[in-house]
Amino acid sequence: MNFKIGGPTERMPIPVIKAFGILKRAAAEVNQDYGLDPKIASAIMKAADEVAEGKLNDHFPLVVWQTGSGTQTNMNVNEVISNRAIEMLGGELGSKKPVHPNDHVNKSQSSNDTFPTAMHIAAAVEVHEVLLPGLQKLHDALSAKSKEFAQVIKIGRTHTQDAVPLTLGQEFSGYVQQVHYAMARIKAAMPRIYELAAGGTAVGTGLNTRIGFAEKVAAKVAALTGLPFVTAPNKFEALAAHDALVELSGAMNTTACSLMKIANDIRFLGSGPRSGLGELILPENEPGSSIMPGKVNPTQCEAMTMVAAQVMGNHVAVTVGGSNGHFELNVFKPMMIKNVLHSARLLGDASVSFTENCVVGIQANTERINKLMNESLMLVTALNPHIGYDKAAKIAKTAHKKGSTLKETAIELGYLTAEQFDEWVKPKDMLGPK
Amino acid sequence: MNFKIGGPTERMPIPVIKAFGILKRAAAEVNQDYGLDPKIASAIMKAADEVAEGKLNDHFPLVVWQTGSGTQTNMNVNEVISNRAIEMLGGELGSKKPVHPNDHVNKSQSSNDTFPTAMHIAAAVEVHEVLLPGLQKLHDALSAKSKEFAQVIKIGRTHTQDAVPLTLGQEFSGYVQQVHYAMARIKAAMPRIYELAAGGTAVGTGLNTRIGFAEKVAAKVAALTGLPFVTAPNKFEALAAHDALVELSGAMNTTACSLMKIANDIRFLGSGPRSGLGELILPENEPGSSIMPGKVNPTQCEAMTMVAAQVMGNHVAVTVGGSNGHFELNVFKPMMIKNVLHSARLLGDASVSFTENCVVGIQANTERINKLMNESLMLVTALNPHIGYDKAAKIAKTAHKKGSTLKETAIELGYLTAEQFDEWVKPKDMLGPK
Amino acid sequence: MNFKIGGPTERMPIPVIKAFGILKRAAAEVNQDYGLDPKIASAIMKAADEVAEGKLNDHFPLVVWQTGSGTQTNMNVNEVISNRAIEMLGGELGSKKPVHPNDHVNKSQSSNDTFPTAMHIAAAVEVHEVLLPGLQKLHDALSAKSKEFAQVIKIGRTHTQDAVPLTLGQEFSGYVQQVHYAMARIKAAMPRIYELAAGGTAVGTGLNTRIGFAEKVAAKVAALTGLPFVTAPNKFEALAAHDALVELSGAMNTTACSLMKIANDIRFLGSGPRSGLGELILPENEPGSSIMPGKVNPTQCEAMTMVAAQVMGNHVAVTVGGSNGHFELNVFKPMMIKNVLHSARLLGDASVSFTENCVVGIQANTERINKLMNESLMLVTALNPHIGYDKAAKIAKTAHKKGSTLKETAIELGYLTAEQFDEWVKPKDMLGPK
Amino acid sequence: MNFKIGGPTERMPIPVIKAFGILKRAAAEVNQDYGLDPKIASAIMKAADEVAEGKLNDHFPLVVWQTGSGTQTNMNVNEVISNRAIEMLGGELGSKKPVHPNDHVNKSQSSNDTFPTAMHIAAAVEVHEVLLPGLQKLHDALSAKSKEFAQVIKIGRTHTQDAVPLTLGQEFSGYVQQVHYAMARIKAAMPRIYELAAGGTAVGTGLNTRIGFAEKVAAKVAALTGLPFVTAPNKFEALAAHDALVELSGAMNTTACSLMKIANDIRFLGSGPRSGLGELILPENEPGSSIMPGKVNPTQCEAMTMVAAQVMGNHVAVTVGGSNGHFELNVFKPMMIKNVLHSARLLGDASVSFTENCVVGIQANTERINKLMNESLMLVTALNPHIGYDKAAKIAKTAHKKGSTLKETAIELGYLTAEQFDEWVKPKDMLGPK
Repeated sequence: MNFKIGGPTERMPIPVIKAFGILKRAAAEVNQDYGLDPKIASAIMKAADEVAEGKLNDHFPLVVWQTGSGTQTNMNVNEVISNRAIEMLGGELGSKKPVHPNDHVNKSQSSNDTFPTAMHIAAAVEVHEVLLPGLQKLHDALSAKSKEFAQVIKIGRTHTQDAVPLTLGQEFSGYVQQVHYAMARIKAAMPRIYELAAGGTAVGTGLNTRIGFAEKVAAKVAALTGLPFVTAPNKFEALAAHDALVELSGAMNTTACSLMKIANDIRFLGSGPRSGLGELILPENEPGSSIMPGKVNPTQCEAMTMVAAQVMGNHVAVTVGGSNGHFELNVFKPMMIKNVLHSARLLGDASVSFTENCVVGIQANTERINKLMNESLMLVTALNPHIGYDKAAKIAKTAHKKGSTLKETAIELGYLTAEQFDEWVKPKDMLGPK
Repeated sequence: MNFKIGGPTERMPIPVIKAFGILKRAAAEVNQDYGLDPKIASAIMKAADEVAEGKLNDHFPLVVWQTGSGTQTNMNVNEVISNRAIEMLGGELGSKKPVHPNDHVNKSQSSNDTFPTAMHIAAAVEVHEVLLPGLQKLHDALSAKSKEFAQVIKIGRTHTQDAVPLTLGQEFSGYVQQVHYAMARIKAAMPRIYELAAGGTAVGTGLNTRIGFAEKVAAKVAALTGLPFVTAPNKFEALAAHDALVELSGAMNTTACSLMKIANDIRFLGSGPRSGLGELILPENEPGSSIMPGKVNPTQCEAMTMVAAQVMGNHVAVTVGGSNGHFELNVFKPMMIKNVLHSARLLGDASVSFTENCVVGIQANTERINKLMNESLMLVTALNPHIGYDKAAKIAKTAHKKGSTLKETAIELGYLTAEQFDEWVKPKDMLGPK
Repeated sequence: MNFKIGGPTERMPIPVIKAFGILKRAAAEVNQDYGLDPKIASAIMKAADEVAEGKLNDHFPLVVWQTGSGTQTNMNVNEVISNRAIEMLGGELGSKKPVHPNDHVNKSQSSNDTFPTAMHIAAAVEVHEVLLPGLQKLHDALSAKSKEFAQVIKIGRTHTQDAVPLTLGQEFSGYVQQVHYAMARIKAAMPRIYELAAGGTAVGTGLNTRIGFAEKVAAKVAALTGLPFVTAPNKFEALAAHDALVELSGAMNTTACSLMKIANDIRFLGSGPRSGLGELILPENEPGSSIMPGKVNPTQCEAMTMVAAQVMGNHVAVTVGGSNGHFELNVFKPMMIKNVLHSARLLGDASVSFTENCVVGIQANTERINKLMNESLMLVTALNPHIGYDKAAKIAKTAHKKGSTLKETAIELGYLTAEQFDEWVKPKDMLGPK
Repeated sequence: MNFKIGGPTERMPIPVIKAFGILKRAAAEVNQDYGLDPKIASAIMKAADEVAEGKLNDHFPLVVWQTGSGTQTNMNVNEVISNRAIEMLGGELGSKKPVHPNDHVNKSQSSNDTFPTAMHIAAAVEVHEVLLPGLQKLHDALSAKSKEFAQVIKIGRTHTQDAVPLTLGQEFSGYVQQVHYAMARIKAAMPRIYELAAGGTAVGTGLNTRIGFAEKVAAKVAALTGLPFVTAPNKFEALAAHDALVELSGAMNTTACSLMKIANDIRFLGSGPRSGLGELILPENEPGSSIMPGKVNPTQCEAMTMVAAQVMGNHVAVTVGGSNGHFELNVFKPMMIKNVLHSARLLGDASVSFTENCVVGIQANTERINKLMNESLMLVTALNPHIGYDKAAKIAKTAHKKGSTLKETAIELGYLTAEQFDEWVKPKDMLGPK
């Protein structure tokens, strides 16, 4: 092989291989409709099914750092399927008879349209099997926590500084909304992922294929996967550009920002045990340090934020690849799909891990939360409508300098009475508009 | 001022200032409904209108590198409006009477909800006034060229190498599709941009505002702009995260990839005058070189690809900012909106410039296109269905080595007759499936 | 003009214009050595000096989104200088006599070598006048604080969780080291910035220039700027690639990471006033919120982290531009230098602002620091060498669960005596190896 | 395990595991100097050597998406080594006797200093064993080609348009310079990679280690690897920031830009066979297309440019991780080192593959080169010094419009004689200054 780059971890991702299995099976069915010998077609279908099921994974040793069209992988697939079909039909391996890798398995196809088709199938399947379920699980767990914490009033923080109160449930509702939108964004990118290049052959014209082939293959793939694949309305775009993958990667990049924010908040809110913010109690999963006994670290948050950083990086790789197509073919295909699948898998898996090992076990440290709440200077905001901004500010500043409470200070400054303070400053009345 | 960072070019973008004018006008209207003295409200509205119209731009000298919540700019706006309103009412500038910047102009508001509201208004307006019209113009021009070139058969190129033919119109149809989808992607991001944070005040709870204020302000802003703004369903998310801007930036990043691809293709297809591909003749806009007379450069392509690179960079800045919010407030607001507006403006303007100064004037160099077409070895693909892949390959390789034509070589190798060649190899029959 | 892209804020950066002034002056001197009429040469020099001094800034309205070689700007400079020189010599503006923009001002030059020369001069000057002085100022202020805080023992935090102690001075010493290395990294990139393309003319061969011209111009520029400029050893690389700018941008990207880390730490350590970590007291520069009186925000940290995010984004733009040069010329020049200068200016200015308005005024909140220190569970680590890891861990965990002190718990568990505890657990003995 | 994220391809990179072997061996030697039982120390050393040699790779199944400090991997290493040492000493596996993973293998260490130490060792070894040798090989091959092509005069291209001539050797000399500088940049980043965190233990103070331990361990590691490792001058920086890795990643990012440029040029210069630029003949390594026989694609260029895009993406991941450290510990460690090692390996391997399978076999297509050279309009530049810019420009433009030669046109316009043309326009006289 001419591409000794990166070693075994750099092999073409298995989801791409499986997607090829689906595509080749669909193509064989359609080719049979158009006259391919049913015996040959049938053998191809069976062999392709085995590829789709992952039974022949070991036969795909090629790395992604090969031809930018993925040609070697398409040929690899054609050969594995033809040989397995030959084997099923009792022929001689490597003889190309009775099942020829090019003339039969690749019939009406080109690397240039099969590889992008497999890219889209693989991306869609990974999104539906790993990414969206992972996000949904996280969403549901955060939503449950938001409800659980609905009555826990706590101090807010803006600019990382003390601010007016909200409930812990409200705080978590922001996370819920973020994950809800993350799923919406990913789904919004899917229509263009469901468009398949198959039928475009070498340059998008569909040369050497048949009228109707493109539509039929897309329909078969849709039937096999249960996903709403259609044939791409413009095959020139489908081969020469991979904007749809850049778009999907962009949706995952936004998701990474959301998850980074959530995981960062949770680790800071759970910081301690005694010198941090300490409002959340995170589950203890493993001893955190080889030298500091008793310390429990927010390791799930760390895994999640590392994943987020990786997804942001992957997105730039996908962007650079997506911007550098030339003429009738973008030749950054294997790199692009590798990164898209990497991001989808990492985000999906990390969401599950984060949910199961962290979110579901989060407890509110109500004692600590109440203590901080009651000491806070920011409750002074409740006085704004009553005594005006400037006086309220003076109370807060004075109390801050003296280390005294708002109430004491307000009375001392002569701005209001104790009764007025108690009436006007009620955290539970500060949680919404009036 | 405590932020001497970057100089005049770094001032808060004018679209943000104008958006604040719209917001403050809307808020004054709603505040009047809730009891604000109509005289004061009316003066605020008039002053705010002037801000929205750009009449007071000189009063906003602050740079974006300030507080991450944009507080200084909100205060700047409050003061400019209160002073202008005071002036209109015959009061003393700076007296805060009868129009107080905080108590009246900022009533029921906080920097924390007004700034993100202004961000969304500014982004939406810029998208609708600059970005989408620019892309539409480019789309239409490319579409017209695609139709104009519908009959021009040319050689295709994959891997930057000669490939089977397509029409120049087909090639351009890929660009049309890319720009069509670019607009679709941007529009798909807008629903979350139309959500306004106003009414969330300091931490998202809506403290110190009134029930209904949020909805009414959004409705007023919608009426003033003609865009479908609504109040954000979750104000905690709307203050603490700016995923919607990361998402919009992602759509522009994908657009940048599309435009980079298109501009690159056009400059390479137009390369020459004598030693390039030379299939397109680009308009001569300016002398290209101070030392090489007679040379005309694809300068519009260069401006466009530079813009694309900038947008990709801006996207990373937005991503980093978007991922680093903490607790109840993301404090990368001014930086994020600056980059989003920068990208929108550059992409919109560059699309117009590229269209007017390049695309509309592109001519097909049919003489050159025909010459390359007829010399091509890749027409051999047409023989695949007739004589099989292996023999077709041998013809092409032999002709390549001998520098001879496909026809001569095919006959010489005894694979077919001259008549068969003429019948089987017809470029115009190679433009689609059969 | 054919490039209506982005408006006035997008004009070619002034440092580039000034650099052109320096270059054109140097070239005129050398051209005189090679025979250019001294009267003409002298007028060019004077006019060029005015450009270098910024006196003619208004004559350079062109935006960066133009030809990717910067040709229009070079021509703009040639014309402004020739006209100003003509004016000085009493000629007719626009007549090109007696000073011709191309034949005289641009003599022995091309846009292709002058623009990259101006890029390098501008970058080097900005680094030396703005970036390095800003970082040095920050370094010195952090270093002074590190010394000031040398005796303040505080709890450490790893994984954002409580850890073993260190001094606040030690903590700050890490920041000092980061900024020290930031300067070292930037300086390490400069040797390749000091290499000038001048003398390469159109494609790097030096056609139409004179043997020795390149070396002499570099020497003149060095003399005029006081910086060690030399002629680039390979002019083909100097025109076709801008790796040196990608490298410098990379050094600034690393600097941005350092400053993001430092500013983040400082805002979290200064969080409060009552519900944060509260170990640092940051200077109050402005009222922080329009709704929350008394609140003081870490606005300088916010400006700094926004700048850091911008620099990371700019770096990607520079990277994309740097990777897309073709053949004898990279045509992302104006975009690249704009971003490099933007990053240098922002980092330099923000460092000064952050130093003057934040770092120098930072105070240690020793009361709070001591309180956290004494309550900490992590002092248990000091027991590791005496009673082993497992027992130490049990003490910490037990104390954590019971809310009791380490000492009480250790004695209760029977692992040691009160005397042993006092002897073994001394924070000031935990600040280094033994 | 609590981190089911990403699957087997996401395991901690083997170079990190091997680096841990080196570190643990070095630490055991130093611990013996400080009193560790020689029998235990010796067993640890032997077991650690096996880890360093890769003999125990199967025992490290953990993925990188774990604790951000790499704690689990350090514990994994401690346990594997202690068990193997116990086995060697005839003890019972899992008994922690006589070799305890924490008390003996991890003696005077913490995850917080061992993991960054292993990161630096792994990065330095990979740079020296894979990256620099790969680049050197590429450099030498390009340099040989530059000399081989020293006499091949060809047309230059700027703005992708025809320009004045240079030699193919000169063109390649630019690539040689880029790769030369790539190595220089990487080497320039190494001094800070050679700094080891070992001895800082948990927070950088060196608690629970011995005076001199840090220096001795670094010296042992230096001796074991033959690389100039030293102890980090500031351990707080060494644990809390990984700027050194961001810096190294930045050097690789610049290298990626260089290689992207070179590979792009080569594929375009080699484009054809008949409708491209066709100046280079690239080696035929594999059949390029499953549908287009006879086509040979620049697959090595494609692999290289995909690698370049990946490295740019990895760099952003490293940057985001590097910017997000907090307090005494950066917890993006495993993600950062994974990306740095990925980039180093890919760039090194791809350089070798590109060299062996492409560069060494590149041939100049002199026939084509001469044809393009002689037809070129850009030779007109040679007339600038003789007849002035404006007349030269007119000749070029007229010849362009008429499709005639420069010579014919020049004479027809009456600007010069045939003899003068032949004397003044000599490509071989246009390759340098005079």
